[in-house]
Amino acid sequence: MPINNIDNLMRSQILSEALPYIQKFYKKTVVVKYGGNAMTDETLKNAVMSDIVLLSLIGIKIVLVHGGGPEINEMLGRVGLESKFINGLRYTDEETVEIVRMVLAGKVNKELVAHLTRHKGNAIGMCGIDGQMIVAKKTESDVDLGLVGDIVKINSAPILDTLGAGYIPVIATVACGEDGTVYNINADTAASRIAAELGAEKLILMTDIVGLLRDKDDPSTLINTVQVSEVPFMKRQGIISGGMIPKIDCCVEAVRRGVKGTCIIDGRVPHSILIELLSSEGVGTAFI
Amino acid sequence: MPINNIDNLMRSQILSEALPYIQKFYKKTVVVKYGGNAMTDETLKNAVMSDIVLLSLIGIKIVLVHGGGPEINEMLGRVGLESKFINGLRYTDEETVEIVRMVLAGKVNKELVAHLTRHKGNAIGMCGIDGQMIVAKKTESDVDLGLVGDIVKINSAPILDTLGAGYIPVIATVACGEDGTVYNINADTAASRIAAELGAEKLILMTDIVGLLRDKDDPSTLINTVQVSEVPFMKRQGIISGGMIPKIDCCVEAVRRGVKGTCIIDGRVPHSILIELLSSEGVGTAFI
Amino acid sequence: MPINNIDNLMRSQILSEALPYIQKFYKKTVVVKYGGNAMTDETLKNAVMSDIVLLSLIGIKIVLVHGGGPEINEMLGRVGLESKFINGLRYTDEETVEIVRMVLAGKVNKELVAHLTRHKGNAIGMCGIDGQMIVAKKTESDVDLGLVGDIVKINSAPILDTLGAGYIPVIATVACGEDGTVYNINADTAASRIAAELGAEKLILMTDIVGLLRDKDDPSTLINTVQVSEVPFMKRQGIISGGMIPKIDCCVEAVRRGVKGTCIIDGRVPHSILIELLSSEGVGTAFI
Amino acid sequence: MPINNIDNLMRSQILSEALPYIQKFYKKTVVVKYGGNAMTDETLKNAVMSDIVLLSLIGIKIVLVHGGGPEINEMLGRVGLESKFINGLRYTDEETVEIVRMVLAGKVNKELVAHLTRHKGNAIGMCGIDGQMIVAKKTESDVDLGLVGDIVKINSAPILDTLGAGYIPVIATVACGEDGTVYNINADTAASRIAAELGAEKLILMTDIVGLLRDKDDPSTLINTVQVSEVPFMKRQGIISGGMIPKIDCCVEAVRRGVKGTCIIDGRVPHSILIELLSSEGVGTAFI
Amino acid sequence: MPINNIDNLMRSQILSEALPYIQKFYKKTVVVKYGGNAMTDETLKNAVMSDIVLLSLIGIKIVLVHGGGPEINEMLGRVGLESKFINGLRYTDEETVEIVRMVLAGKVNKELVAHLTRHKGNAIGMCGIDGQMIVAKKTESDVDLGLVGDIVKINSAPILDTLGAGYIPVIATVACGEDGTVYNINADTAASRIAAELGAEKLILMTDIVGLLRDKDDPSTLINTVQVSEVPFMKRQGIISGGMIPKIDCCVEAVRRGVKGTCIIDGRVPHSILIELLSSEGVGTAFI
Amino acid sequence: MPINNIDNLMRSQILSEALPYIQKFYKKTVVVKYGGNAMTDETLKNAVMSDIVLLSLIGIKIVLVHGGGPEINEMLGRVGLESKFINGLRYTDEETVEIVRMVLAGKVNKELVAHLTRHKGNAIGMCGIDGQMIVAKKTESDVDLGLVGDIVKINSAPILDTLGAGYIPVIATVACGEDGTVYNINADTAASRIAAELGAEKLILMTDIVGLLRDKDDPSTLINTVQVSEVPFMKRQGIISGGMIPKIDCCVEAVRRGVKGTCIIDGRVPHSILIELLSSEGVGTAFI
Repeated sequence: MPINNIDNLMRSQILSEALPYIQKFYKKTVVVKYGGNAMTDETLKNAVMSDIVLLSLIGIKIVLVHGGGPEINEMLGRVGLESKFINGLRYTDEETVEIVRMVLAGKVNKELVAHLTRHKGNAIGMCGIDGQMIVAKKTESDVDLGLVGDIVKINSAPILDTLGAGYIPVIATVACGEDGTVYNINADTAASRIAAELGAEKLILMTDIVGLLRDKDDPSTLINTVQVSEVPFMKRQGIISGGMIPKIDCCVEAVRRGVKGTCIIDGRVPHSILIELLSSEGVGTAFI
Repeated sequence: MPINNIDNLMRSQILSEALPYIQKFYKKTVVVKYGGNAMTDETLKNAVMSDIVLLSLIGIKIVLVHGGGPEINEMLGRVGLESKFINGLRYTDEETVEIVRMVLAGKVNKELVAHLTRHKGNAIGMCGIDGQMIVAKKTESDVDLGLVGDIVKINSAPILDTLGAGYIPVIATVACGEDGTVYNINADTAASRIAAELGAEKLILMTDIVGLLRDKDDPSTLINTVQVSEVPFMKRQGIISGGMIPKIDCCVEAVRRGVKGTCIIDGRVPHSILIELLSSEGVGTAFI
Repeated sequence: MPINNIDNLMRSQILSEALPYIQKFYKKTVVVKYGGNAMTDETLKNAVMSDIVLLSLIGIKIVLVHGGGPEINEMLGRVGLESKFINGLRYTDEETVEIVRMVLAGKVNKELVAHLTRHKGNAIGMCGIDGQMIVAKKTESDVDLGLVGDIVKINSAPILDTLGAGYIPVIATVACGEDGTVYNINADTAASRIAAELGAEKLILMTDIVGLLRDKDDPSTLINTVQVSEVPFMKRQGIISGGMIPKIDCCVEAVRRGVKGTCIIDGRVPHSILIELLSSEGVGTAFI
Repeated sequence: MPINNIDNLMRSQILSEALPYIQKFYKKTVVVKYGGNAMTDETLKNAVMSDIVLLSLIGIKIVLVHGGGPEINEMLGRVGLESKFINGLRYTDEETVEIVRMVLAGKVNKELVAHLTRHKGNAIGMCGIDGQMIVAKKTESDVDLGLVGDIVKINSAPILDTLGAGYIPVIATVACGEDGTVYNINADTAASRIAAELGAEKLILMTDIVGLLRDKDDPSTLINTVQVSEVPFMKRQGIISGGMIPKIDCCVEAVRRGVKGTCIIDGRVPHSILIELLSSEGVGTAFI
Repeated sequence: MPINNIDNLMRSQILSEALPYIQKFYKKTVVVKYGGNAMTDETLKNAVMSDIVLLSLIGIKIVLVHGGGPEINEMLGRVGLESKFINGLRYTDEETVEIVRMVLAGKVNKELVAHLTRHKGNAIGMCGIDGQMIVAKKTESDVDLGLVGDIVKINSAPILDTLGAGYIPVIATVACGEDGTVYNINADTAASRIAAELGAEKLILMTDIVGLLRDKDDPSTLINTVQVSEVPFMKRQGIISGGMIPKIDCCVEAVRRGVKGTCIIDGRVPHSILIELLSSEGVGTAFI
Repeated sequence: MPINNIDNLMRSQILSEALPYIQKFYKKTVVVKYGGNAMTDETLKNAVMSDIVLLSLIGIKIVLVHGGGPEINEMLGRVGLESKFINGLRYTDEETVEIVRMVLAGKVNKELVAHLTRHKGNAIGMCGIDGQMIVAKKTESDVDLGLVGDIVKINSAPILDTLGAGYIPVIATVACGEDGTVYNINADTAASRIAAELGAEKLILMTDIVGLLRDKDDPSTLINTVQVSEVPFMKRQGIISGGMIPKIDCCVEAVRRGVKGTCIIDGRVPHSILIELLSSEGVGTAFI
């Protein structure tokens, strides 16, 4: 729904104020890990898709990476497969990984491509199997997690070819082993590794939280920027805890591998990606 | 299993005899519609995948198009959706088309890509939604078939970009409407239209029959070559009948739209694609 | 001065609403004839320069064409040359044309380039002499106007080369004859002809009026869109009269030579170019 | 005026003898600093322009750099601005630098482009402001020289883009600061720095003297070649003195920054550039 | 031997006067048929080789075509094969054509390449067999001439590839039939057909005569230019007769097939190619 | 003669089994030194030419290098020049080197090109003189060998240009000195040096022996693979002796200069190149 109570003058001035931010990311690569409420709420989803198309038009090489938690669970339910979680990681047998691949690469991925197309974006959906983009091996751990994989190597060629031909690459985070075995991998980690391999200017992880709070019950204590070197200390302090840990580890890892900046943004805020990239204030916590 | 009772000399002579056939298709586009037994039998599948990689290496621009009948039915069964067929065409409601898309683009397509990768082929899987490759609209007919679509337009850009970047494009035949609606389309028709749009040298439809027989009970009456102008007459004669009609109509349509040659080959014969393309004898019926 | 009383949410939504307009002009050429108050008022000038850089970043091939009336007069005054006007056209002797060239190509042009550079734009200033871009011959008329020229030919190569190498071309409207004689030419006409030669999507003429008014004393009677075929009738009616005639003739001529759309916008409104190109409402009168 | 008393045979033999010199500079960059009498005498100017076009045609990447002393003084006089010189450097206030820029970039530069065009050369005139080609900062000195600048950086991209697109770049030596301030800079120094940045094969400074003389009153004592390491000694000896010092310092600086050869040639000799580049004898003093 | 009695000033002026001629042929193709005395006299040969290198450097796409009469006869003599001539055309049996090919492609051709290399030219020698450049069939005539061929087709690709990669193509006029048979062909005709296929600006045939004379005993009656439409009349008048006929027919044929200008020049004059191309006077007779 | 007693199925399976070998050499450079019986026996020659075309089509950058012993001797005989051999190397006077060049570059080379053309290959014949490809100097030795040369430098540009333009380069091993003198060089050495300069994947030397035998009288003692470090020891043992020494030295030298693998194959076996490259067994001895 367009904003009507703003006249054109103000409208144009706001556009004009985006100039330095557009210049900052011009011809740079930005990897967006899409997930959470922004993926299930239709209005939010619509805003994200529109933002992605906009960003691709203003010269940003945008790469959309996604998982698909709820839809996987729903389909596993429909076919009568029970989701087992071990230490917060899904146990994945062969039947399950089949469903995971099918849902991610055949349902979620193609829906996103169709959505971008509806906004006149030009997108191509791929998964880690295409062009051997994400190579994984079985995760080694005390508890057997089945076909859960650790990323061994990102092959950026298919992403670069797709960007170079003028498409927005949409990547479902399914990986394959050297022997062709399909692995379920963590989508945040995949996004982090892809951003690193592409030498991205920025990695954005969409979440359902305001950001990192100094006091977890007080949104006014949002921490805007964290140096990655502070993270271990913040973990010990308990500021970073629980479900935040793996997400923030992805940010830290990306920065260590050369990504200029990473951030966790609140996907529940409409157009949060635009706010993050094209305004003076971020909408979450940046890790640099 | 390698053939051992042939010495190297004979082996090299056979390779050498393929030269004129390789020259014939060098830098030309060949569209293969993959289906039938060759898709379900592991040995046959393996041979097809190996052939596709080989053909792509010897300079043929090969495009693999596939549907996925049995796997769709199986998944529809698993989620408790009944397949309705009207006049031999599947009635497709929204839930069903979701499953169709998911199975074709997320399961069959990615399995083929993985298979080609195992043979060291460099493939990228796509469906008609990616880059708006196959645009369709609801099929108009007396009986409502639901989300069954007729192809309105093939956008060859994503296929050409993929070929140009050195990948084998593997295309799942799901289409989308201008408004983003997903349509179930006939895979043979899609292959025919894609071949036409690419100005292909050859369209190969893999089937489970020997070819077109003058006497349907006598394999020795195989017709090697048919002029497309003879087809109406052969239909009236009953030589072309039943399930053959739509397939042969695809061949005729492709030739009319500029494809140099089309053929229906017996997918039950291992390496039937190689025999068709690289030897003096075809393995089915050609329509020219 | 940034607008502060708007929160980021609204800000991002406004950016988001620009998407369809950005798509409309993506990779298209837009020629802006810069002049009037927007050229003399520092705040307006600043806004125009910022807009030009913004538009070039979001994928529009923008070409800035300018004259320089007041600065020419001032310099002519400083060197003691009197400006003679005949039928509203400046009489131009050799000494005068020297000053015109010097002021346009050496002062106004380079100031604009410097201004764009300050906004981090990448611009190159040229005039019609460079690469023989604007070829003219002496205007034939009853009254001798001296070195006033009519455009014979636009050579688009230097403009296209400059755009292709990633610069914003800034063009001072001085022309040269086949024999090297320098001619003073009308800047609106030059912009119109350049737009035509480039096959521009849009020609924007900046003026100091609201647009074409049905009743010239009532701004509320602004005419938004005029078919070029209506222009002769509107001239007879007196709606188009006086100083508007040559400007509107430039618009008509551009449309006749293939420019998709032209418009006369009010340069006194800050960011009027952005409003014209990136919002639903224009800010003047379009001729199509 | 063509030479008639030479028959075609001799004519062709002379052309033929130029071969090794043409080969020496083929595809190499040569920077010519144009100035002195060769710039004011019409016959000499004509010969230089013709030479530049010829050299560009025979495969030399020629870059023409110019200042404009007399014309600046004349215009300063016409607008009633007095030229102040401090230690041989012009004191430059804001009004003066405006006139300098205008005369150099708008008069001299465009006249040269027009002149080259008359010889069917394809030239584009630029100044140090275009594409931020010459970045300067205020000269630090005991005496304030106003807007006199020292070159901080040469951005060769616009020169290379112009050469690459097939034009002869003609460069007026006006510079701009990071903040957009315009600076008056020394043209010889600018030519020297441009030559260095381009990795030129040769830098030619046109002067109004025969060259460096061992005995300044005896032209027969012309020194053909000087090693840059000898320059300090020659200064102490007084062989290099007065106005020669800054010019020779430019040569020395260029060689130190990687230019293969530099020379001071006598611009009063017609076609002195051709003689220098395309014959066995130079026409001045080379610094290597 | 360099000309010493000319000072550098005159030298440079002569170079300068070549400018309009260099511009005329810049980036154009010129085919030189080399033959006669210029091929046997070492001084003349040296001048031609130097001219060819010079012309290639100043931007002319020069193609050198040659036969090799005297050297063929000498080798035929050495191996004891008698030269038979029928109607002025050599009768060519299989043994003879072998020698012809060997001498043309292996001796004359490579000597020319080596000669050009000595002048620092970058040349590649080829014959009509390479890349199937000159396809011929057996000449049909009343008298059997053996393996004498008529040109069926010129394949310009290898010549264009060689020019495009920066080499001077040197072409020995041996042709091959579709079946690989080698044919002896007329070198003038081959040059004419090659010039036509390349859309050359000029074809130059080097001969041992002054040009076409109105009175064959009076060199002062040299005809400078002939319209090809006048040729039949001049044949009837006897002005064109004897050995001139086939050469002039080649010129006429080339003009008819689109070559802009052709000429017969006196190869006995040193640097006659330079005189022809780079001065106001030709050195023979032009056919246009 | 095609093999008929093999059905299409077996035929296609054999083609299919070549896949991994095709992949191994895809886009890699292979240099074949052609010589011995394979050059004189028409059936063998035909098989080699067909193999070369086949290999070039399946994506291998194949370079054919040849000498021409018997044909040189024959021509020397015909013109009455006696072949003198000193220490197994031909003494070469000026007359002889002329014949050598003529036969290699004009006869053997062009016959091979014609032969490849007959198999629809697209070939260009060159020798070491073209584009200064093989630069040599007089061999220094105790005994004067006349115009026998040692290779000083390989200039790969003409080979790469020819490959890049899609031709098969066929290279006659004649070299030229810096001063243009023609030298007779050893063809095996030339092939070795060319392979090294091109960074070839493989160098194949065709010979008339089975390979390196542990017991020279027992073909069953064929050594399949030799590490180049073993060669000195095998020479001391006498396993490598006589005419094998220079050939094997070429292999060793090529490996030392970076060629991945070299081999001596039995040219008397039809299609030995195909067997070597496209099957599991080699047909001679590899040096790695």
